[in-house]
Amino acid sequence: MLALEYDGETVVIDAGVMFPGEDLPGIDLVIPDISHLLQCASRVRGIVITHGHEDHTGALPFVLDQLKVPVYAPRLAEGLISSKLKSRSRIKNADLNVATPGAPFTLGPFDIESFRVCHSIPDSTGLIVRYPGGAIVHTGDFKFDHTPVDGRPADLSRLAQIGDEGVQLLFSDSTYAETPGYTPSEQTVAGALRRIMYEAQGRVIIATFASLVSRVQQVIDAAAANGRRVCIEGRSMIETVQLSNKLGYLDVPEGVLVSLSEAKKLPPRQVVIMLTGTQGEPSSALTRIANGEHKHIEIESGDTVVMSATPIPGNQILIGKTIDNLFRLGADVLYGRIREVHVRGHASQEELKLMLSLTRPRFFVPVHGERRHLVAHSRLAQSMGVAPENTFVLDNGDVLEIAGEHARVSGRVKAGPVYLDGSGRWSLESEVLKDRRKLARYGFVIITLSLDRETGAVESDPEIVTQGFADTAETPALIEGTRKVVTETLDRLNGTLTEANLKSSVKSALKKYYQQETKRRPIILPIVVEG
Amino acid sequence: MLALEYDGETVVIDAGVMFPGEDLPGIDLVIPDISHLLQCASRVRGIVITHGHEDHTGALPFVLDQLKVPVYAPRLAEGLISSKLKSRSRIKNADLNVATPGAPFTLGPFDIESFRVCHSIPDSTGLIVRYPGGAIVHTGDFKFDHTPVDGRPADLSRLAQIGDEGVQLLFSDSTYAETPGYTPSEQTVAGALRRIMYEAQGRVIIATFASLVSRVQQVIDAAAANGRRVCIEGRSMIETVQLSNKLGYLDVPEGVLVSLSEAKKLPPRQVVIMLTGTQGEPSSALTRIANGEHKHIEIESGDTVVMSATPIPGNQILIGKTIDNLFRLGADVLYGRIREVHVRGHASQEELKLMLSLTRPRFFVPVHGERRHLVAHSRLAQSMGVAPENTFVLDNGDVLEIAGEHARVSGRVKAGPVYLDGSGRWSLESEVLKDRRKLARYGFVIITLSLDRETGAVESDPEIVTQGFADTAETPALIEGTRKVVTETLDRLNGTLTEANLKSSVKSALKKYYQQETKRRPIILPIVVEG
Repeated sequence: MLALEYDGETVVIDAGVMFPGEDLPGIDLVIPDISHLLQCASRVRGIVITHGHEDHTGALPFVLDQLKVPVYAPRLAEGLISSKLKSRSRIKNADLNVATPGAPFTLGPFDIESFRVCHSIPDSTGLIVRYPGGAIVHTGDFKFDHTPVDGRPADLSRLAQIGDEGVQLLFSDSTYAETPGYTPSEQTVAGALRRIMYEAQGRVIIATFASLVSRVQQVIDAAAANGRRVCIEGRSMIETVQLSNKLGYLDVPEGVLVSLSEAKKLPPRQVVIMLTGTQGEPSSALTRIANGEHKHIEIESGDTVVMSATPIPGNQILIGKTIDNLFRLGADVLYGRIREVHVRGHASQEELKLMLSLTRPRFFVPVHGERRHLVAHSRLAQSMGVAPENTFVLDNGDVLEIAGEHARVSGRVKAGPVYLDGSGRWSLESEVLKDRRKLARYGFVIITLSLDRETGAVESDPEIVTQGFADTAETPALIEGTRKVVTETLDRLNGTLTEANLKSSVKSALKKYYQQETKRRPIILPIVVEG
Repeated sequence: MLALEYDGETVVIDAGVMFPGEDLPGIDLVIPDISHLLQCASRVRGIVITHGHEDHTGALPFVLDQLKVPVYAPRLAEGLISSKLKSRSRIKNADLNVATPGAPFTLGPFDIESFRVCHSIPDSTGLIVRYPGGAIVHTGDFKFDHTPVDGRPADLSRLAQIGDEGVQLLFSDSTYAETPGYTPSEQTVAGALRRIMYEAQGRVIIATFASLVSRVQQVIDAAAANGRRVCIEGRSMIETVQLSNKLGYLDVPEGVLVSLSEAKKLPPRQVVIMLTGTQGEPSSALTRIANGEHKHIEIESGDTVVMSATPIPGNQILIGKTIDNLFRLGADVLYGRIREVHVRGHASQEELKLMLSLTRPRFFVPVHGERRHLVAHSRLAQSMGVAPENTFVLDNGDVLEIAGEHARVSGRVKAGPVYLDGSGRWSLESEVLKDRRKLARYGFVIITLSLDRETGAVESDPEIVTQGFADTAETPALIEGTRKVVTETLDRLNGTLTEANLKSSVKSALKKYYQQETKRRPIILPIVVEG
């Protein structure tokens, strides 16, 4: 999410989510903190979406709940957002608008025009934003594919025109700024898929991202060419395919798509199944198949599974397990390291340089990437002639102020991540996550003591409950030891018994005991109840 | 760990540890289960170690504690094991022996001879094991580097001889069986390091594995050539360097090594600091520096940090954060994606084929890798003429039985991983880990109720303790709600109050309440004490 402000008026570009890794236990989604935008809500003119991916649109159900502003998005993205808002949010009557490339619209002081780029979902765009200070270009997520599957390459000529007119500021996609050369065309995958379907003796099961509509098209084409039918499995992929088909982003020959039950009646050599799960997500179709837990699909000898996606960093272990399990079940598995079954959706260094050459901006801000990607991209820009003092590697929340020929980071606003856990409220600060990580490492021991209300004496044996601390073989001895330590502590305290010193004494005695016995540090919680 | 058994007598090859990822919370180490070996302990003739890496030697402190057998290891590995046993185990008088390449020794029915291979620690070996059934070759971890840093390439001629004599069974390293081509020589790194030290205007901080002695040699050489001094930081690296130096595996020119306090007095351009932390390990020197938490080393403007290692899958997120933080502190960071500052220590496909060509085994077992690597390697072997029915992709615990010209998987023994947590006992079954993962996702709520011993009535308000469940803003309302739900449940139970139905009723009422309020599923623990 990026906000442009001029004369107190604001437009927002994209509103995405991040998917949490294992370092964020229990978290469902990570969304941007919009408290700064809410402070000036009445002067936010709208949100402009560059393309339909979750990491650019997924926060809208939460953002629009608090910030009632119009949304502008390319046609396919608008369709996806609309169906998502209907099915999975309580937002009614969102003000959604289709932004067509080449058809400018105005939001406050900003004249906005989108232009076509290539990326791993159809209808991806970049933005030209004109305002009294000059012209800003935002690339969105892009690559330059001269032979895209949908036949609609990026609009180089519009970029060249705007470059000639003069670009004040370029925001450019940095995801693959570390990678030399060019990103291969989607067409390279088409050939690989055709060969795989030709060679495979049994079913071909292809996993990819639900939004990768061009891959769906390639699979359908390759299947048709090989006399195979295609079964799409899983809600998110079915929804995307239906919508894309309806809006004309997919070209599906009559009779190629079949249901799973129809597919089951066909000889294996005539079947292709498409589904999600390339990242080893535990609940995805492919992971459940790999674990032998899918209700309707079981791996059969002769199956070929194709992992048509790049592993997202942090997912490698889960992805590796999925591949290993599929091999164990007798499938042949084809994945990036051994076959060219995927190309990435982002520009490599030579394409990033081409973007810089076309736009020749005065100021440059690399976006969409970790710090190291932004640094690599800013160096590329400098190597292309952007002045080092005009290149800004920004952190979330940084405010870049541009005044004429000068720009500087002038401050920070609150923009850190918000963790969503369970119900749709904006929720969970990082304290809770720290507790969760501690619990995961050590488990806990709870000691409940009951005090006589009148005398203040401890009435009975402590009740001891533990989880995640010790295994079944060790536990009885440790519980016995805990009981002994608690009793000794109580004896020692005899006469000076207050609830506070009872708790702290028990805690520190047990801490020492566990350290000595197990070298572990469980969370120790003494609870005192008055009987 | 691999065990060869003939006529009831056994030798073991390697005894390594695995380092746990975030999917094994709280676990310190993963070691092999040796219960099968303990059953026939008196007939285990010894453990043969191929090289000094932790994933081949690290389980010895635990294994030798229970299995008193001689250990044979190459000279450097023997030194490392000996110092490890002394400093970090209670094992006295371990029977450690140096196995010199080309000098055979006998363990029961097995005549064993080691041969030199290249790998990322000096003195790495493979093994030729002759027994009445034939000759077995175990490659250890290897690559073929024709220009290794220590000038000692793999012994191709010995491998060719044994191939001519006939190899019954080959165990071969599969780590990079998915990677086409050849692994580049260590020499490619030497050039890169020299250039980096020449170009850097300030200090050069190089992180690598503590055991990567050839990298230390290259750094020392490059530093000496550039008029820089080298400071080694961190216990494990200092120990390895001292031992390697003593045993002649390092060639350190007079005066190049300096202490950190000496280094601090030198101009930055004359300083190189070597340390560990390439995997983003939270307690490593580099991670602490990146977090600004290192006691003695702070990043200064002009510092260049070199990450001289391959990211281990599963560590990418932590490594990325370390690199990002170093950039943020103003260092320049050089790592694998942008400079050739590391080569891997394992053979790629062409080298694996060379190994197969030299040895021409009847039976082939790919080892050292995940299932997908083993599958890729077994296909390579088949493409080289090994019969598919003579190729065995084994799981931990599988027993491969060879009788003359036939081999088959004839059974399984217990060999699964043992998780070490805290004190040195063999410990922690996976139940505990499941509990820990649950606690990490949801946190817990504990409700303590106190019952009157005589009447059985609930005496006072429940005591409610929660952790990892809700954030500070939500908690008061949730505690209040919990209290209400508990009170209502007690009222409903009035008259039918047993401890068991009290607990289960409270639990199910609260489960429903939390689901509805928060859509989360904390661990709910009702505790009943009698007052």
